[in-house]
Amino acid sequence: MAKEKKMVEAITSMEEDFAQWYTDVVKKAELIDYSHVKGCMVIKPAGYAIWENIQRELDRRFKEAGVQNVYMPMFIPESLLQKEKDHVEGFAPEVAWVTHGGANELQERMCVRPTSETLFCDFYARDIQSHRDLPRIYNQWCSVVRWEKETRPFLRSREFLWQEGHTAHATAEEAEARTIQMLNLYADFCEEVLAIPVIRGKKTEKEKFAGAESTYTIESMMHDGKALQSGTSHNFGDQFAKAFDIRYTDKDNTLKYVHQTSWGMSTRLIGGIIMVHGDNAGLVLPPRIAQVQVMIIPIAQHKEGVLEQARKLEKELSGEFRVKLDDSPKSPGFKFAEQEMRGIPVRIEIGPKDIQAGQAVLCRRDTREKVTVPFAQLAEKLRETLDTMQREMLERARAHRDSHTYEARTYEEFAETIETKPGFVKAMWCGDEACENKIKEELSATSRCMPFHQEHLSDVCVCCGRPAKAMVYWGKAY
Amino acid sequence: MAKEKKMVEAITSMEEDFAQWYTDVVKKAELIDYSHVKGCMVIKPAGYAIWENIQRELDRRFKEAGVQNVYMPMFIPESLLQKEKDHVEGFAPEVAWVTHGGANELQERMCVRPTSETLFCDFYARDIQSHRDLPRIYNQWCSVVRWEKETRPFLRSREFLWQEGHTAHATAEEAEARTIQMLNLYADFCEEVLAIPVIRGKKTEKEKFAGAESTYTIESMMHDGKALQSGTSHNFGDQFAKAFDIRYTDKDNTLKYVHQTSWGMSTRLIGGIIMVHGDNAGLVLPPRIAQVQVMIIPIAQHKEGVLEQARKLEKELSGEFRVKLDDSPKSPGFKFAEQEMRGIPVRIEIGPKDIQAGQAVLCRRDTREKVTVPFAQLAEKLRETLDTMQREMLERARAHRDSHTYEARTYEEFAETIETKPGFVKAMWCGDEACENKIKEELSATSRCMPFHQEHLSDVCVCCGRPAKAMVYWGKAY
Repeated sequence: MAKEKKMVEAITSMEEDFAQWYTDVVKKAELIDYSHVKGCMVIKPAGYAIWENIQRELDRRFKEAGVQNVYMPMFIPESLLQKEKDHVEGFAPEVAWVTHGGANELQERMCVRPTSETLFCDFYARDIQSHRDLPRIYNQWCSVVRWEKETRPFLRSREFLWQEGHTAHATAEEAEARTIQMLNLYADFCEEVLAIPVIRGKKTEKEKFAGAESTYTIESMMHDGKALQSGTSHNFGDQFAKAFDIRYTDKDNTLKYVHQTSWGMSTRLIGGIIMVHGDNAGLVLPPRIAQVQVMIIPIAQHKEGVLEQARKLEKELSGEFRVKLDDSPKSPGFKFAEQEMRGIPVRIEIGPKDIQAGQAVLCRRDTREKVTVPFAQLAEKLRETLDTMQREMLERARAHRDSHTYEARTYEEFAETIETKPGFVKAMWCGDEACENKIKEELSATSRCMPFHQEHLSDVCVCCGRPAKAMVYWGKAY
Repeated sequence: MAKEKKMVEAITSMEEDFAQWYTDVVKKAELIDYSHVKGCMVIKPAGYAIWENIQRELDRRFKEAGVQNVYMPMFIPESLLQKEKDHVEGFAPEVAWVTHGGANELQERMCVRPTSETLFCDFYARDIQSHRDLPRIYNQWCSVVRWEKETRPFLRSREFLWQEGHTAHATAEEAEARTIQMLNLYADFCEEVLAIPVIRGKKTEKEKFAGAESTYTIESMMHDGKALQSGTSHNFGDQFAKAFDIRYTDKDNTLKYVHQTSWGMSTRLIGGIIMVHGDNAGLVLPPRIAQVQVMIIPIAQHKEGVLEQARKLEKELSGEFRVKLDDSPKSPGFKFAEQEMRGIPVRIEIGPKDIQAGQAVLCRRDTREKVTVPFAQLAEKLRETLDTMQREMLERARAHRDSHTYEARTYEEFAETIETKPGFVKAMWCGDEACENKIKEELSATSRCMPFHQEHLSDVCVCCGRPAKAMVYWGKAY
């Protein structure tokens, strides 16, 4: 009973305290539990099922794009991590160091991978000899560790699950094309499957990945107006190849350096799903990523025929949909609250009166809209409802983002907007890091990206007034 | 060209040096590469694809058996590892210790999980309160680390991939039933999918898992007569529950300890596939686990119509089979050797004369049997060939095991058999660890298991002559 009570307790409303609302949802929707290691989480069945669905769909798209999966060791010897100067500077401060194996001190300490560029490079240096060995389009699904100070479930944890793709190409053009291809794959995945609209663009020099020539990103807006970097794709040029001596014999019989890329997406996406779609009743899952799409909840299930009809429906619908029947002894009201908390897209309510009338009530999680549907039309109506919900969730998120995206032409306008209105600010930028630093320091906003889709808002930098080079999306970020 | 030459070089024959043959196959079939961290391997695409297929099929069977996937942190604080006395004694000597996060020394050092009993117990202690919370049937797919001194790819590596199931039950009977259920699931999987016959049985006290009440195992025989422990399932009783205080309120309103199990299978299975089915031309993959089941190899592919017909076949067959066409510029002879090295179950040879005659040549990897088949019957013949091959691989492995399994009634007979004949020895045992120790010391053989299917070979222990309690399979093991 203690547990049931906990479940129906209201969560903090997002208007009152968004951060607390988030924490309540991840706990009460039973996505995670905290562990004894600060910043490392236990991902519970409902949370892991979302990740499994992300993996399945993303991996399918990867394979269509010619990606092959591999697995690299989880440890990086210190000397290997240090081979690429910018890279080690970026990651060394936040790695976990292994110093002993059993009772023996290691000759060289190793870190637990924070990312695996150095391991892939070390491997490619042996593996690639000829132009016939190229391209290499490898990916791995694994967990990585970054010893962050401030942690939040899914958004910033010391250990997280992700995929990291690492490719090697004969030419700079091919590497650039792959970098963009994977960014677009990520963007399409987010929009089509997670119903999260994204802005595709390039990071500034200041914000790019440690060791990259250029970093591309997809940025999404959470319900509180803050940005979530949702996936990145890096073009390394031949910088790593030079540090690790990865060369191939070309058709003309000369030795050339390869050009490399890497790209990754993580369990962070689950945080994105929560903060884009969730509401004050809990999680709202897009139908395509939900483990259970339809929950059948019987009313007055002790009455004759109710459970039988509910089971019959479950069986009929389970060929096409991911359906579950909640025939536990809890009350219907409690079951409704639980289904809503867990974000299950549609529930079907069915009681004695419905059965007599040959119909059931179908209720959408996002809009709470209820319709009564004759049994014979249930499958068709469900199909339509799930499709509509998936589409409208994306549209609603896009409308929210667009209505929270502002333009600024002067620094004063910029400052006032970013301080008073949660959201993104589009503004022109001269390309100088000094302006980025000033904006970060004074306004706590960072450049999210220079979008592929550029607009000409004015001729001059919003910060310094010198000639503008690009339009930038600015915002506060997770 | 250097690479092509390497590929067709003969591998060491297994009769000459089985260990070297194994090493040659894992390298030349491109399953793994060595890394800079001793005992940690790079699993290359061909190796990882086998693991992905194992995962997919095993996970499907898990879900049918009510298993839910979760993810636990990879780190275990030292104090947590020490909570169960037998368990820490078994694992502490071989764990990797993390002592620093970034530049800071940790207050308490943590090990990288060698297995996750302690993490699951810590979680269950918070997660389980009522009989309504039971059973918990959780599993995770992850990598674990054991700092072994002697390592071999797949068979014994410092890091390996596996799944570990951890369950909690209200009663001892239910825990025992789950332990046996999962062992049988493993056994069926090995036989039906990997074509590896196994002996199902119970480990002796000496050989059981650190902290378990009883350990069940499936043991398989490699081509060299040695045993491979291929999967284990442990019943912990309430020993861990007492150490971690995992209690639930039962229906009668009293607090009771839960009963727990754990069970695991790992990338070790890939070593088993190699050593059970491989031959002197390389790997032989059972059709059900092969990423590519059929390789089409054109003969004289420069001649008109050959590649067109080969592509047409590929397209026609790819709906039902996992087919690939090798249209690279290498010679057919080289392609044959490569397909054989990689263990692809069937190849289709197709040249100008075949096309004229409206037929192709189909060649089985295991028996090298060739048949000429009219195009119209190709799909049917393929289906039949893959089925037959899968079945016969299991039968052949079983016949090999049975013909290398001996009985011993006296110690002299036991000693002579185990020293002169590679394989298993069945012999009676009194149940005393002293006899096991003597056999291990003098004959380098260990008790593999007390099989479920017991035979009465004699009344007395093969070692000490005292009354026998069980028949044991003995052997040398990987």
